[in-house]
Amino acid sequence: MPSADKAVAKGVHIHHLNIGQPDIESPQEFWNAVEHSGLKVLEYSHSAGQPALRKRVAEHYRSIGIDVDWSQVLVCTAGSEALSFAFLSIMNPGDEVIVPEPLYANYLGFTRAADATIVPITTRIEDGFALPAVEEFEKRVTSRTKAILVCNPNNPTGTVYSDDQLEGLRELVIKHDLYLIADEVYREFNYTGKPIRSVLELPGLEDRAIMADSVSKRFSLCGARIGFLTSRNAEFNAAALKFAQARLSPPTLEQVGVLGAMETPPVYFENVRREYMARRDLLISRLRAMDGVACADVHGAFYAMVRFPIDDTDRFCQWLLEEFSHNGQTVMLAPGTGFYETPGLGRDEARVAYVLNCDRIAGAMDCLEAALKVYPGRLAHV
Amino acid sequence: MPSADKAVAKGVHIHHLNIGQPDIESPQEFWNAVEHSGLKVLEYSHSAGQPALRKRVAEHYRSIGIDVDWSQVLVCTAGSEALSFAFLSIMNPGDEVIVPEPLYANYLGFTRAADATIVPITTRIEDGFALPAVEEFEKRVTSRTKAILVCNPNNPTGTVYSDDQLEGLRELVIKHDLYLIADEVYREFNYTGKPIRSVLELPGLEDRAIMADSVSKRFSLCGARIGFLTSRNAEFNAAALKFAQARLSPPTLEQVGVLGAMETPPVYFENVRREYMARRDLLISRLRAMDGVACADVHGAFYAMVRFPIDDTDRFCQWLLEEFSHNGQTVMLAPGTGFYETPGLGRDEARVAYVLNCDRIAGAMDCLEAALKVYPGRLAHV
Repeated sequence: MPSADKAVAKGVHIHHLNIGQPDIESPQEFWNAVEHSGLKVLEYSHSAGQPALRKRVAEHYRSIGIDVDWSQVLVCTAGSEALSFAFLSIMNPGDEVIVPEPLYANYLGFTRAADATIVPITTRIEDGFALPAVEEFEKRVTSRTKAILVCNPNNPTGTVYSDDQLEGLRELVIKHDLYLIADEVYREFNYTGKPIRSVLELPGLEDRAIMADSVSKRFSLCGARIGFLTSRNAEFNAAALKFAQARLSPPTLEQVGVLGAMETPPVYFENVRREYMARRDLLISRLRAMDGVACADVHGAFYAMVRFPIDDTDRFCQWLLEEFSHNGQTVMLAPGTGFYETPGLGRDEARVAYVLNCDRIAGAMDCLEAALKVYPGRLAHV
Repeated sequence: MPSADKAVAKGVHIHHLNIGQPDIESPQEFWNAVEHSGLKVLEYSHSAGQPALRKRVAEHYRSIGIDVDWSQVLVCTAGSEALSFAFLSIMNPGDEVIVPEPLYANYLGFTRAADATIVPITTRIEDGFALPAVEEFEKRVTSRTKAILVCNPNNPTGTVYSDDQLEGLRELVIKHDLYLIADEVYREFNYTGKPIRSVLELPGLEDRAIMADSVSKRFSLCGARIGFLTSRNAEFNAAALKFAQARLSPPTLEQVGVLGAMETPPVYFENVRREYMARRDLLISRLRAMDGVACADVHGAFYAMVRFPIDDTDRFCQWLLEEFSHNGQTVMLAPGTGFYETPGLGRDEARVAYVLNCDRIAGAMDCLEAALKVYPGRLAHV
């Protein structure tokens, strides 16, 4: 029986801070568009997505400073497929992509499916998970390197990369003739007060910049499975379209809904951002008040990569579900090892997703605080 | 400019008999379920699909004689993904799958993505595209053969395989330790008067039979992107689930709709079947009345693979769009070469999808009849 099922079987309530499934309501504009689709036959859409949606998304990008034409936007079955198509389109067997770690674990699967390899470059909690110096990236460039991939704002660290850091990568990919792929699905979850720079805004990368995007987080539409792959490289776009044609079409009704959701008023995002900032502030202050727990500043997305004074977070997370409860509750986290490609890293870290409201986060932190006092694998001096 | 756009630019109406997009309305039960979903947050579903849908689909399978448990049904992002997961789960680089041709062209892409190869076995219009004798299949078995794949009822030929033919394949896959994969997405489009045998009904194939299914055709829900991958092989199912986890989830709202559509009353399918039989009868009688045109009997799906007395159907299909019209109309067909893996085959064939109503099929046949009289590449004596 999986650990979570054991907790449920004992009647213990689990605070799910382990996955990026927000509790925020999807915009009413999505539901309205679905309800009034007027469709009688749910047909395939064009393999590249419905032109109306592609046009509306390109218009949105232009409104935030990303100058692209709608023919450069491919509608995908979520961000997962966008990244998967990106890798399949540029990688040959044995090729390498440099990715800062900790990293979103599914990158490993997408890379493997393209018979390519991730070369990790470790970022550290002591540095706030900032990007390493460009020289560190350059040391990892080989004749097989095809791309650098960054997730900005970052899952799982919540880091937002600065213009200077992106500028360094820009120069590096030009120098070594690489692609720069950015996973920007958390763009709206930005608490820095400054706009986030898209790779598509970096000058001189016309043929090199590839951006993966999704409505999953932005509109709390994880189940819609609608994402976007955008590039100005016509050859790349033609290759990606071939993969799109092989799967025929992204979901049609969800595209209709997302076209509606594109009209969601700015106040929706302002409310969401304010809500997440309150959750983040509560989470971090509670974590930092716990003896031996370390947490870097978090400026984006809705995750924190947290260091705990324990032996092994895989064991700790399992113990939280199977052997611990506090007032009939416990908490589920994502063990850190799953976010590192370098063996041995992440054993004292876990990703915490602050996707629940402040009351629940407070309840979850009460559990965690109590748990750390009694966990048998706690380290004495950290 | 693509050929079809050239026709449209000239104001010519195109009868689209080239793709399997039916004009039949999706069941009201689908739309009702979507409208009354009661969802506020469109969340990820379980990677294997919503348990309620998996249970309902397994119940449906049991009601038609396919004895499976819901844990053996994986909800996929349409039949395309079901087949793709099947290939990825069983194939190693260089492995081979034997497939009767003409074949559904996307099989080639799914196979290539798994670094495997299709070994075609040619079926012929003179034999009504019947399956070749088992000995012919056996001749193609090598040490790299991993599976035999059949599409039943068949796209693009409309053939329905007999119990005897399936029995022969059953014995062959046991003898040579292979998988038998069946694409059964056209199961309901069966005009034989007898039930179609699923590979999952064949005895002794517990670990070998894999069935791909979809709601695209059955419920005229091509745009829903919901399919099913079913097998009793626990190891295979575990491997397929890993690929499912990498793409997180199939579309959630469409699963809600499909759960509703599963309650579509039998009269819907009876009406659809009657409609398609009328279309098929009209299509075949019109085609056979054309000088030099050959068309096998069609017992299932909604396609016919037709032989024309012409030089090259790629050229003919392009000419129909770019240079021909009849009363302001023309017709679009799928050239035969795309359905053959053996080079050189299919040059005098095209797939005709009878997905339009009888009035439109009559109009399309008027065009085709007129076209064959004036097409410059017509062969003199066929």
